Amino acid sequence: MNLDFDLQRFRRLLELSSEQVLSLYGSLGERKVTHASSPQLIADRFSGPLPAEGREPEELLARDIPFIFGHSTLNISPRFFAYVMSGGSQVGILAELLGAALNVNHAKWHLASAAAEIERAVIRWLSEFIGYRADAGGALVSGGSEANLYCLRVARDEKAPGVREDGCRSARPLTLYASTETHSCITKSVEMLGIGSRHLRKVPVDSRFRVDVRKLEEHITQDLKAGLQPFCIIGNAGTVNSGAVDDLDTLADVASRYGLWFHVDGAYGAAAAAVDPTSEMFRGLERADSVALDPHKWLQVPFEAGCALVRDWASIRRSFSYAAPYLRAKSDSAEKWDWMGHTFQLSRGFRALKVWMQFQVYGSRKLKAVIEENVSLMRRLGAEIDRAHDFERMAPVPLSIVCFRYVPAHGPSLTDDELDRLNDRLLEECERRGEFFLTGTKLNGRTALRACLINHRTTEAETLGLLAHLRTLGEELTGAPGPERGAVSRSGSAR
Amino acid sequence: MNLDFDLQRFRRLLELSSEQVLSLYGSLGERKVTHASSPQLIADRFSGPLPAEGREPEELLARDIPFIFGHSTLNISPRFFAYVMSGGSQVGILAELLGAALNVNHAKWHLASAAAEIERAVIRWLSEFIGYRADAGGALVSGGSEANLYCLRVARDEKAPGVREDGCRSARPLTLYASTETHSCITKSVEMLGIGSRHLRKVPVDSRFRVDVRKLEEHITQDLKAGLQPFCIIGNAGTVNSGAVDDLDTLADVASRYGLWFHVDGAYGAAAAAVDPTSEMFRGLERADSVALDPHKWLQVPFEAGCALVRDWASIRRSFSYAAPYLRAKSDSAEKWDWMGHTFQLSRGFRALKVWMQFQVYGSRKLKAVIEENVSLMRRLGAEIDRAHDFERMAPVPLSIVCFRYVPAHGPSLTDDELDRLNDRLLEECERRGEFFLTGTKLNGRTALRACLINHRTTEAETLGLLAHLRTLGEELTGAPGPERGAVSRSGSAR
Repeated sequence: MNLDFDLQRFRRLLELSSEQVLSLYGSLGERKVTHASSPQLIADRFSGPLPAEGREPEELLARDIPFIFGHSTLNISPRFFAYVMSGGSQVGILAELLGAALNVNHAKWHLASAAAEIERAVIRWLSEFIGYRADAGGALVSGGSEANLYCLRVARDEKAPGVREDGCRSARPLTLYASTETHSCITKSVEMLGIGSRHLRKVPVDSRFRVDVRKLEEHITQDLKAGLQPFCIIGNAGTVNSGAVDDLDTLADVASRYGLWFHVDGAYGAAAAAVDPTSEMFRGLERADSVALDPHKWLQVPFEAGCALVRDWASIRRSFSYAAPYLRAKSDSAEKWDWMGHTFQLSRGFRALKVWMQFQVYGSRKLKAVIEENVSLMRRLGAEIDRAHDFERMAPVPLSIVCFRYVPAHGPSLTDDELDRLNDRLLEECERRGEFFLTGTKLNGRTALRACLINHRTTEAETLGLLAHLRTLGEELTGAPGPERGAVSRSGSAR
Repeated sequence: MNLDFDLQRFRRLLELSSEQVLSLYGSLGERKVTHASSPQLIADRFSGPLPAEGREPEELLARDIPFIFGHSTLNISPRFFAYVMSGGSQVGILAELLGAALNVNHAKWHLASAAAEIERAVIRWLSEFIGYRADAGGALVSGGSEANLYCLRVARDEKAPGVREDGCRSARPLTLYASTETHSCITKSVEMLGIGSRHLRKVPVDSRFRVDVRKLEEHITQDLKAGLQPFCIIGNAGTVNSGAVDDLDTLADVASRYGLWFHVDGAYGAAAAAVDPTSEMFRGLERADSVALDPHKWLQVPFEAGCALVRDWASIRRSFSYAAPYLRAKSDSAEKWDWMGHTFQLSRGFRALKVWMQFQVYGSRKLKAVIEENVSLMRRLGAEIDRAHDFERMAPVPLSIVCFRYVPAHGPSLTDDELDRLNDRLLEECERRGEFFLTGTKLNGRTALRACLINHRTTEAETLGLLAHLRTLGEELTGAPGPERGAVSRSGSAR
């Protein structure tokens, strides 16, 4: 039961698929970022039973793919400012096509020797790109969550030898330290690893949302006194809330003083260590024992591509190597790199190809230029907000996230609670209209509009267009015929 | 710094990439399965430094992709019998192209509403396909390792409430039970979860490599007496060594008797529950609390696509849900399904598309036909081996794995050690020549040639061709001019 098409038909299907892709990218400027269809419409469309008989792929491509494309939020759009999501790259699209066709399993050298070497190169390059160690070990993983999990896993195993065999049952519970602004995946990793979330100490932050190092050290000394086993400090290199970068160099000092593992979560921000306007903030990154970073964020690789880096290869092997008899092929040798000894996964797809092609085609220079431009655009946006009478900035802009809120310039002055409600409505209305998309967060308990930019397609037209659009919406919601109403620039906006 | 190509060039690059794909599939019959290039050649090719300047993608596609394709083992080939790896499908290739172009993040409904519903449909269909529960919860993951990790994670959290917060520190250590033939990823999962590998009891198997249920129950009662906390039984639904399927129904009885979680690792075999010749072996699967299965194995979806199924959605949410402030968008509601509450990952690519398109285009009927044909071909191979004077079968053939060894029909009779060495050399020589590819394993301490088939492209020409090829190699290695020498059928072989 060979499922293949004849080559002519396969060629035609590749063409039809490519046409869908080209049509999507050709219309990106005109397309809304979100869609406002009812959940029921979408649920109904995909509620059918398991099909016994197949359908013609030509018909599926013509009928279903446009529906799917039309009912997805377009983070590939230059008007997308939500979460921490990049636009992806066209080179990455080609790589996914080629990788799926080859369909290698990356587990062992003798299954995918070129892929094995390409991933080694990519690990080296990523480490070099962010100014980490030239001889770092590591592995490509699905994203920031898994990258942090891998790093904390190695930290756990290195600092509590025997835990692979015995479990997390040492007399003194393992504890670790991170700021209150730390990403939820750290908590989720600690839960996964059997350490327990209550052993993750959430340390307060300063006014710039950076961890308070003095309080962190107090936590450590208290825990030591209480007979616990502090084993790891986590530094943030770009929080997802506001882009704050902890004082990594000082954290490295503290970790060194107490003999702790120093992990840096750079899933979002570490790439900014590569460029001048921001590199100084990352001093100390090179002293980390492990770093999580995400090629599918600021490096514009399509989902999924995360990366865990560790100080040395041996530690990652000590955590993950395991050889069953059926896996001990004769080809194993020092010169033939078996990835299965360095990863939790056994079967692994050719994720490395898209990262490698990204570096090959754009070079580090263009990828750095994207980062620099994103930072510059968002700092410009922050400055515009500071100049405006009807917006208020709520956090510094160290990287490419701007947190702010709409504060009507006219009418009675509003309480914080009223401003929260107004800005919540603003977010809803913005999402409903779909010309731009951003999400909110809470800072010091207050609703903030949060615009994040890690997208190579976005220019000043869209960043300033976002502000103008929010102003228009704000004035509509408050019924205030602001002086700028009607004269707002809509450059870059859709519809 | 927009990284996009103009549309005409992007179209050309899609065409050039498609040509590479078509050329690979057009030459599959003639291509060797493995390649014999030196590791140094490949390492040198990819040893260059991080490129500062980019290259023309046309040049990369013309120069590097053929090299990569030529230096990969082709599990897409019909002459590939190694490990447990499918050939993938051309529909899956189209899906990966389309999914990478859309580049959605599947974490939240309002980011990817169509994708969210498609994954829900796929979970339903996969569960129905293998005869599991119509209302099963679950998630698509990277593969069998992660699927088993997810299921054991939920098992741990359900049977030891409080472990998310407290860690694996209960007074009575958690223990779990599986046969000695169980996949290494179970051990790796237990290590990841902080349970500790020594708390995984490896129970002996019977002559058919199925877990000895009586001994398993003895382990449980001993552990209970010793004050430990048995929490989970793992049944194998297709071991990777020989395809053995444990007596799931009896294991479900035991689990029920002691109040334990019953997990089934069906990463390889569960799909065979869908077809007549093998479905009876899987009785009891429907009673499992969780099941791991791999669409990227017998369902012919390209890497990576695993699936974790659990009895109810609430349990998976209890393990994985976590909401940070910046993730609480106003769109959240009961009718808008946020996948982030059901997965460890936050950012997730559109993996569901390729599984959905696979079912849509081939229907369950064709996918079942592949499985039936694979089983039938391998049982035929087993029968041929039983008839042959120079091969010896070493295990039953319940599914689609045949374990056997070459035993020269002429010359002095060889000891087991000598046979081990001879068969090891046979495997090496087979891999070096590359016309066919299979790997070995150890069964009862002895080297077995292990042929596994989960590939829709393979026909009788290749399965019988494999045996003829091994016979030729065996005769060459032993210097025995066997009667069949030179008259061996080479149908299906390359070069």
